[in-house]
Amino acid sequence: MKDLKVVDKLADSFSQFPSIGSKTAERMAYALLDMPQDEVENLLKNIKEAKSKIHPCPVCGILTDEDCCSVCTDPDRNHAECIVVALSKDVLPFEKIGTYNGTYHVLGGLINPSKNIGPENLKIEELVNRIVKEGIKELIIATNATPEGEITALYISKILSDRNIKITRLAYGMPIGASFDYIDSLTLEKALKGRTKI
Amino acid sequence: MKDLKVVDKLADSFSQFPSIGSKTAERMAYALLDMPQDEVENLLKNIKEAKSKIHPCPVCGILTDEDCCSVCTDPDRNHAECIVVALSKDVLPFEKIGTYNGTYHVLGGLINPSKNIGPENLKIEELVNRIVKEGIKELIIATNATPEGEITALYISKILSDRNIKITRLAYGMPIGASFDYIDSLTLEKALKGRTKI
Repeated sequence: MKDLKVVDKLADSFSQFPSIGSKTAERMAYALLDMPQDEVENLLKNIKEAKSKIHPCPVCGILTDEDCCSVCTDPDRNHAECIVVALSKDVLPFEKIGTYNGTYHVLGGLINPSKNIGPENLKIEELVNRIVKEGIKELIIATNATPEGEITALYISKILSDRNIKITRLAYGMPIGASFDYIDSLTLEKALKGRTKI
Repeated sequence: MKDLKVVDKLADSFSQFPSIGSKTAERMAYALLDMPQDEVENLLKNIKEAKSKIHPCPVCGILTDEDCCSVCTDPDRNHAECIVVALSKDVLPFEKIGTYNGTYHVLGGLINPSKNIGPENLKIEELVNRIVKEGIKELIIATNATPEGEITALYISKILSDRNIKITRLAYGMPIGASFDYIDSLTLEKALKGRTKI
């Protein structure tokens, strides 16, 4: 049996996704060949739609399908309190708790010298501008409990140290080294309540 | 933050694949939003190409991008020996060994009464026709070591019992490199029954 280059190429595409290894990618490629045509059409449509309709909110960076995201445009939200996260998807677990009523700011990543990502590559200037413009009184820095997350939190607290603003960090209810993808809402709620001043 | 229906729909599509749970599907959807546009275009192209170019070989059922697969058209292959498998991808591990030089026959599934899959839904008649037409002398039935695989193997051997043809089944036993600590008793029993002289 000849290697099917078309299938290999498809498997390669699937293996670009996080946590998809080469074995899983191969299984996915063969599963796709077995799928009914309308299910494949549906997948293609959903990919195109997601890629064309979803973009970051120009204010806070949360992914949205509207001009400005529903958090920034909500007058019932407390705009004096702002959670700072690395990526838009990190907002989801906070929204799932249901008790947080402030806003968010998406940095677009974390400071990582080994990958040449410095503060200038992140939306930190935008954050500073928002503090003035929106009258933010408290920043809750909710970066991952990893070295990159720590460095980023410290950097932000340092450049804002001469401003009259409370800067807090999520409490260490979070297991060290954990990623937001696998954290349960209860742990996260505890971490939010026990936040400490940096 | 509003639930993004477009992202949910995309995650749903990804979760249709085998071994992709809802968490992984969600991560994949967000990863896709972060991917460069050309990588996404490439994925779309590969899906379309695979789905349109790949089809089962009309003779043996192996997936191919040619009129007839490279095994069936290879004159150096021994057409008197044929491995019978459930799905096209089951052929890959045999081809990886590199020493098998016979042909294959893909049944397209296994007999499974609970899913209403009977012998008439599988390519068994096609197999019988090939035995006559290609002069197959030995059938090696390589279905999974599951109840469905066993039933299918038994069914095929029964309907061919009055023909002058050797029908064999893959040997059961311990995987190479396996330790007794981790072997299940059913496998061990099979390995004991099928013991061979040194």
